[in-house]
Amino acid sequence: MTSPLKIAVAGANGRMGRAIQSLLAADPGFAFVGGIGRPGSAGAGLIDRSAAIGVADVILDFTTGSAAAELAGLCAAAGGPALVIGATGFEPDELELIAEAAGSIPILRSGNFSIGLNMLMGLVAQAARALPAEGWDIEILEAHHNRKIDAPSGTALMLGEAAAAGRGVSLASVERRARDGITGERPQGEIGFAVLRAGGIVGEHSVLFAAAEEVITLSHSALDRAMFARGALAAARWLAGRAPGEYSMRDVLGLAPGAGGQAA
Amino acid sequence: MTSPLKIAVAGANGRMGRAIQSLLAADPGFAFVGGIGRPGSAGAGLIDRSAAIGVADVILDFTTGSAAAELAGLCAAAGGPALVIGATGFEPDELELIAEAAGSIPILRSGNFSIGLNMLMGLVAQAARALPAEGWDIEILEAHHNRKIDAPSGTALMLGEAAAAGRGVSLASVERRARDGITGERPQGEIGFAVLRAGGIVGEHSVLFAAAEEVITLSHSALDRAMFARGALAAARWLAGRAPGEYSMRDVLGLAPGAGGQAA
Amino acid sequence: MTSPLKIAVAGANGRMGRAIQSLLAADPGFAFVGGIGRPGSAGAGLIDRSAAIGVADVILDFTTGSAAAELAGLCAAAGGPALVIGATGFEPDELELIAEAAGSIPILRSGNFSIGLNMLMGLVAQAARALPAEGWDIEILEAHHNRKIDAPSGTALMLGEAAAAGRGVSLASVERRARDGITGERPQGEIGFAVLRAGGIVGEHSVLFAAAEEVITLSHSALDRAMFARGALAAARWLAGRAPGEYSMRDVLGLAPGAGGQAA
Amino acid sequence: MTSPLKIAVAGANGRMGRAIQSLLAADPGFAFVGGIGRPGSAGAGLIDRSAAIGVADVILDFTTGSAAAELAGLCAAAGGPALVIGATGFEPDELELIAEAAGSIPILRSGNFSIGLNMLMGLVAQAARALPAEGWDIEILEAHHNRKIDAPSGTALMLGEAAAAGRGVSLASVERRARDGITGERPQGEIGFAVLRAGGIVGEHSVLFAAAEEVITLSHSALDRAMFARGALAAARWLAGRAPGEYSMRDVLGLAPGAGGQAA
Repeated sequence: MTSPLKIAVAGANGRMGRAIQSLLAADPGFAFVGGIGRPGSAGAGLIDRSAAIGVADVILDFTTGSAAAELAGLCAAAGGPALVIGATGFEPDELELIAEAAGSIPILRSGNFSIGLNMLMGLVAQAARALPAEGWDIEILEAHHNRKIDAPSGTALMLGEAAAAGRGVSLASVERRARDGITGERPQGEIGFAVLRAGGIVGEHSVLFAAAEEVITLSHSALDRAMFARGALAAARWLAGRAPGEYSMRDVLGLAPGAGGQAA
Repeated sequence: MTSPLKIAVAGANGRMGRAIQSLLAADPGFAFVGGIGRPGSAGAGLIDRSAAIGVADVILDFTTGSAAAELAGLCAAAGGPALVIGATGFEPDELELIAEAAGSIPILRSGNFSIGLNMLMGLVAQAARALPAEGWDIEILEAHHNRKIDAPSGTALMLGEAAAAGRGVSLASVERRARDGITGERPQGEIGFAVLRAGGIVGEHSVLFAAAEEVITLSHSALDRAMFARGALAAARWLAGRAPGEYSMRDVLGLAPGAGGQAA
Repeated sequence: MTSPLKIAVAGANGRMGRAIQSLLAADPGFAFVGGIGRPGSAGAGLIDRSAAIGVADVILDFTTGSAAAELAGLCAAAGGPALVIGATGFEPDELELIAEAAGSIPILRSGNFSIGLNMLMGLVAQAARALPAEGWDIEILEAHHNRKIDAPSGTALMLGEAAAAGRGVSLASVERRARDGITGERPQGEIGFAVLRAGGIVGEHSVLFAAAEEVITLSHSALDRAMFARGALAAARWLAGRAPGEYSMRDVLGLAPGAGGQAA
Repeated sequence: MTSPLKIAVAGANGRMGRAIQSLLAADPGFAFVGGIGRPGSAGAGLIDRSAAIGVADVILDFTTGSAAAELAGLCAAAGGPALVIGATGFEPDELELIAEAAGSIPILRSGNFSIGLNMLMGLVAQAARALPAEGWDIEILEAHHNRKIDAPSGTALMLGEAAAAGRGVSLASVERRARDGITGERPQGEIGFAVLRAGGIVGEHSVLFAAAEEVITLSHSALDRAMFARGALAAARWLAGRAPGEYSMRDVLGLAPGAGGQAA
């Protein structure tokens, strides 16, 4: 039997950090070696960065762009561990630091670790490439709970980007955000959005490809927001022991480059 | 074995008239006794009103409000046959003529003969009455082919009316036609609409009742527009031999008064 | 502002008892006055039956048939409080005791407190009554997580019973549990079941009413098993202050007698 | 403007042949140059094989394995036209003849020309390859009209084959055709089938990939059986002017080899 994968978490007290610790506690394939506190901070269960770098196989970082970039440099200097970055909001120079670090260690970065949503994005991009706009209409439907304050969801817009990219157009040039009143016939090539807000729905997304005589629907349904933490751990498992380089969820899923699937 | 029900059709050359003849030809339970031409008109397969009134068990009328009202008076004066009216656009005095005729013969009038959509409307009204706005969000989704020029569909709006009526409010006071951008949290009591336009979809309608921990969805899917003609014949079958009076599709379905189901 | 409804729970340490306490803690419209221990038992947060009867507006009982029947007698003798019974497995004499107690206090008993599932059952029964077997096929689809060990689900079978009752037949005489191989054409009047087992799906049920040219689908989706506890509290709220008598979830939803909706 | 693509049809009086002619008549991008009668036959609108070979850009063959193989040889000998074969039931030597002919002309052969179903099969295979059986359950649901006499549908089984192939297992070793009674927990790796038969449903197929916290559903809905003829014409359009060789619907859709999508 293989020994468990040793995981440290930066940003351990945030929503994702806590969700990851909860999954780690239940999975004997992983060992949680500690949360990484902010430099100078101290607390129960927190270890410092040097200790984490020394002991972890993979560090998961859900902090900020600047902190993640700094951590990447430290990990690279130490020749490991591998790094999964879920932090967002990077400055260009921070992205350069990460790219440089990826010359020494494997780094995977994503803004959305759901395996299912990344898979869906890859499939949508592929279908959009294969099915011509002349004959196949694309529509995107999303449903979320009644406390969500924006529409369409960020994920719906990313699915729209994946579909538009598959067709080689910009989403902005073809999107139709809503329909009400006398709309006229649907223009060919349009990508339409529809939004439902109701009760406690965790999150539903469907992409329709509809022709005159048949309809393909590619859907994702979130049962539990723990799917994001679960996907981050799958990414960690996949990343451990890889060659140095920059990776994305596309790679975890074995999707072709340009197949979408990158939610960052 | 009972003898077939004898049917005459006024407006036999319109879309509904032709669809009904097509179904009649395939169903041994009915006998088509002729189309009724406009007064003074003549044509192959057309009979005049007096002949139709003399021979038919039920006349189906898909003409205009004024012609249908006149026909109702003639049928009543003759003491029969029963009359199914699908014509729309009545003046108040025409509706009075029909009400008067219904003192002598059974008359059923509807603007939408789909059995399924009438059933759905009845169920939606009932669910809306039973499930309090505090706790249950109502949303309506509809999808149609890409040649449809208005949104939401008339049927979606009727479902919204049925839901609002079930809650004792006006649809206008609670409807949310579309969502895009920063919408804020969903207000309690709102009835939202979402619209898809894609390919050759005949017509799909769904009404969601969503609570924090569960969702009820009541849906209708049209496979073929012949459903309207099929429902008109079901109405004719139900109406034949009834006591004089004014009826609606609600009655055909055995729905309680006020249960919705009237699409006129 | 009205004062909160005072709730005691018998069987407070069971799954439902704990779920109800969790909801009570978050809802200022209710006040939890204590769990009722078994006679002779003692424990933190437990009060005895006499104390509960003296102080509660409604007692929710999730114990056993015999304990619930005994509690009903005690409540009746004291002239209150109202009683919501979720216990199952009653002997005939225990049901008689409850009926007798209902002469003095309001009692509501159900085996399934989900508001949505009870609503669905009522709607299914009504649609099955209205839509003739000649022309409308009924099929029931359910999906649950991969740890469920039986099929179809008990709820799917109850929906089948509701549909069969609506048609005035026994489910056993028309049910089709599965299809594989050369089945021949579908017999008219059959009620078919289909089963999916996959991942962490909490519970999905759909009842199709399908004609040649249109399909109605009535569905329920469970987002969280807390829906059962939520429904039990809705029942308690509805029951408080009613006239003595035996009630069911049908009554809470305002469904006609015989409209189904009773999951006990 | 390009001139229309000249199409001849062998088997013009069969179901597919007639459906293709109906689409050709409505599309100015194609010109129907004639149906090909059986050798020695004569009839209105029929031309002989030599004439068709001389004038057509593409011949669509919906005859029999032996007739199609013979036609392939004749087309190859003449150095054209391209050939789309929808005939089924080939002997090994007939397949060899076709392979040989494909050294001289482009030939595309498929048993199912629906663009949407071929696309779905490709996507299912890809998702099944990417999503590990440990963690992701695959289930297949299909619904058809009440006159269908077998279950599951051939297409559902092909989707199962595509999913199993994506996982590198045989469908026979993992399929679960139906569930009824005490089934026990779902074994990991199983591919389950569920079947609905109802009304006039043209054909619905869904493949679920379900994890503990999320579900992907890939679905196809047939609105009209003309989708098969439409896809055959798309194949003809794609094939015209290609290099000699054997092609499949996978190629039309630009799917990777082994991505499934071949329904023959």
